[in-house]
Amino acid sequence: MLAEVINIKKIYMDYAATTPVDPDVLKAMLPYFSQIFGNPSSIHSFGVEANDAVETAREQLADLFHVKPEEIVFTSGGTEADNLAIKGIAFRHKDLRKHAGPHIITSSIEHPAVLETCKHLEKQGFEVRYLPVDHHGLINVADLVQAIGKHTFLLSIMFANNEVGTIEPIEEIGKIAREHEIALHTDAVQAVGKLPIDVTKLKIDALSVSSHKIYGPKGVGALVLRKGVHLEPLFHGGGHEKSLRSGTLNTPGIVGLGKAIQLIQVQMNKEIRHLTLLRDTLIKNVSTIEESYLNGHPKQRLANNAHFRFTAIEGESLNLMLNDKGIAAATGSACSSKKLQPSHVLLGIGLKPEQAHGSLRLSLGRMSTKEDVSIVSEVLPTVVEKLRAMSPLWKK
Amino acid sequence: MLAEVINIKKIYMDYAATTPVDPDVLKAMLPYFSQIFGNPSSIHSFGVEANDAVETAREQLADLFHVKPEEIVFTSGGTEADNLAIKGIAFRHKDLRKHAGPHIITSSIEHPAVLETCKHLEKQGFEVRYLPVDHHGLINVADLVQAIGKHTFLLSIMFANNEVGTIEPIEEIGKIAREHEIALHTDAVQAVGKLPIDVTKLKIDALSVSSHKIYGPKGVGALVLRKGVHLEPLFHGGGHEKSLRSGTLNTPGIVGLGKAIQLIQVQMNKEIRHLTLLRDTLIKNVSTIEESYLNGHPKQRLANNAHFRFTAIEGESLNLMLNDKGIAAATGSACSSKKLQPSHVLLGIGLKPEQAHGSLRLSLGRMSTKEDVSIVSEVLPTVVEKLRAMSPLWKK
Repeated sequence: MLAEVINIKKIYMDYAATTPVDPDVLKAMLPYFSQIFGNPSSIHSFGVEANDAVETAREQLADLFHVKPEEIVFTSGGTEADNLAIKGIAFRHKDLRKHAGPHIITSSIEHPAVLETCKHLEKQGFEVRYLPVDHHGLINVADLVQAIGKHTFLLSIMFANNEVGTIEPIEEIGKIAREHEIALHTDAVQAVGKLPIDVTKLKIDALSVSSHKIYGPKGVGALVLRKGVHLEPLFHGGGHEKSLRSGTLNTPGIVGLGKAIQLIQVQMNKEIRHLTLLRDTLIKNVSTIEESYLNGHPKQRLANNAHFRFTAIEGESLNLMLNDKGIAAATGSACSSKKLQPSHVLLGIGLKPEQAHGSLRLSLGRMSTKEDVSIVSEVLPTVVEKLRAMSPLWKK
Repeated sequence: MLAEVINIKKIYMDYAATTPVDPDVLKAMLPYFSQIFGNPSSIHSFGVEANDAVETAREQLADLFHVKPEEIVFTSGGTEADNLAIKGIAFRHKDLRKHAGPHIITSSIEHPAVLETCKHLEKQGFEVRYLPVDHHGLINVADLVQAIGKHTFLLSIMFANNEVGTIEPIEEIGKIAREHEIALHTDAVQAVGKLPIDVTKLKIDALSVSSHKIYGPKGVGALVLRKGVHLEPLFHGGGHEKSLRSGTLNTPGIVGLGKAIQLIQVQMNKEIRHLTLLRDTLIKNVSTIEESYLNGHPKQRLANNAHFRFTAIEGESLNLMLNDKGIAAATGSACSSKKLQPSHVLLGIGLKPEQAHGSLRLSLGRMSTKEDVSIVSEVLPTVVEKLRAMSPLWKK
């Protein structure tokens, strides 16, 4: 019976890695490929129509995040938004390198788009402080305050973690940043659509958005950038996006992102309830497996994230075996799971390398069903049992 | 009669600014939005299927340009490819800044994505030499050889100009670059699909491609990068594209670019004949207008480019009036026509500012017809006449 169900349906539980484009989003995008195809920078009617669509999307983003349309900069995705914000702000403060740091403060469990960017900036002479997190993945706000130095100009703290789902105390951090007159960037790639985000109220200066994590198309994203925050651009050229991001605007992608954001505006509250219910059922069911542990904060976590570790299990094998059963899940980071090093996030929350390797991320989404959760809850224990039977580390 | 035709059909003659997505390209992309939507970096079947599609596209590009698939780096477009190549190579040679330059040699009529990038690098301490061009827009190869210094590490010369359509002598430049062991980058955004390009034979080290200029979607492009040429990345993060360009791969966009490239492979020769015929008819017809002049090289020009100047005409008004008649054309640069400065390309070929302001680019494409050319040939003289009648500069 179970096998039959699996044979007819693959189950996707990797929404944190990427989401399918919502049919309504695709429908909104379609006219902009071959019909309303003008270059938004052109002054003729083909260009004007395309530009109007871009500006509508800009308003849709501004509405959701409680900012002004001119505070939206479209990018090619979350990685570009993170790089643009951090390098962009850093190079505006490059003279501060002659003074001892820290110049930038971030956390040790950021997405690689933030961490690797910070490591690159260290090579350019910036001092970066990587704050530790507790075993739930939370940064300690007192640590943050203490780390701030005379020449600190940027905090980059993620809104919610992409692996273990822990939500960071951005509201408190925003207050601290504003008090100290330090710019606050937050990678909100995983948080958008799963939490209300009022950028103005939260005193965020720069917020990274990815379209493909919220049922929009891949290849587009945005940086919400508070007026008055100055950036060096990453791309020089035609001067698009007020010279902050040159390059022909990706009209269909931007329209898709706008529509995805509008859908969030309309249905987020309902969706959070749906996801929370499924997630909690999943956590309850999986937790019945012997020596299984929930990673991340038990309460302050994304509505769609369930992250576990299992003693004496190799996560890669677990994922491959689940895949054979038609279940798509993730180990390690969302975006670069082909790496074999243990996850820096799992090490960051205090796991030993072998514990980190025995982890599994199940992330739910808009199309997830109770049936999906039931099947995974039934299949996972059998797979864990089978792997343990083969494991020399499992001593029972 | 004419008015009726115009009322029922708008004529697009701005293919150099952007192209509609070919229906076959859109068809190829469609399954990758909501069905085969996995993150190409994921190890489960959703990811593997997406990754296979990306690798097929990589092979399609490699085939057209006569390189290996691993010599293709996907980007968000031509501007990113230009920035990645030039900044990427420059920062690998940053130690040479302590020696007097020129470090980089380019031309004075490059696309802003090259020119503005070079200007940015000048602020970083690199010396850049901007070679002049002749009145046809050709750089002089002897000038180039003479400009090369002991510490020159990069030439960036466009394959064909985006405004006046002049094709530069890339084969000769490639030989010179290789002889002097200097990397050669070329912005081929306008050339791809209108000329055969054998990157290996032409001794090009880095070549920028934009999808939306060749009937592919906006928001994607590529850098063809010869093996052994080292770059500093623009984006740091998850390590995608062999760490040259982090960020989740835009599967549908990449599939679309691949399909657009495959269509070029199949139909380019036929298309060049079609475009050349239309272009030559257009040039012949427009040249009958009193005091009209062809800009760019009379022969060594892109098959789809017709660029004119008209005495005592303001190009902006000409374009707006043509737009009123349903004809989309361009003035100044393709990509940022909202700027009001006279085009650096037209000044570069020796036009006076008032001559540059009186220019018009008509660029043809796959969907252009003889009828389009006939209508434009009929409408344009009447519009020029009307504008001249109002112009104090027209003394007849």
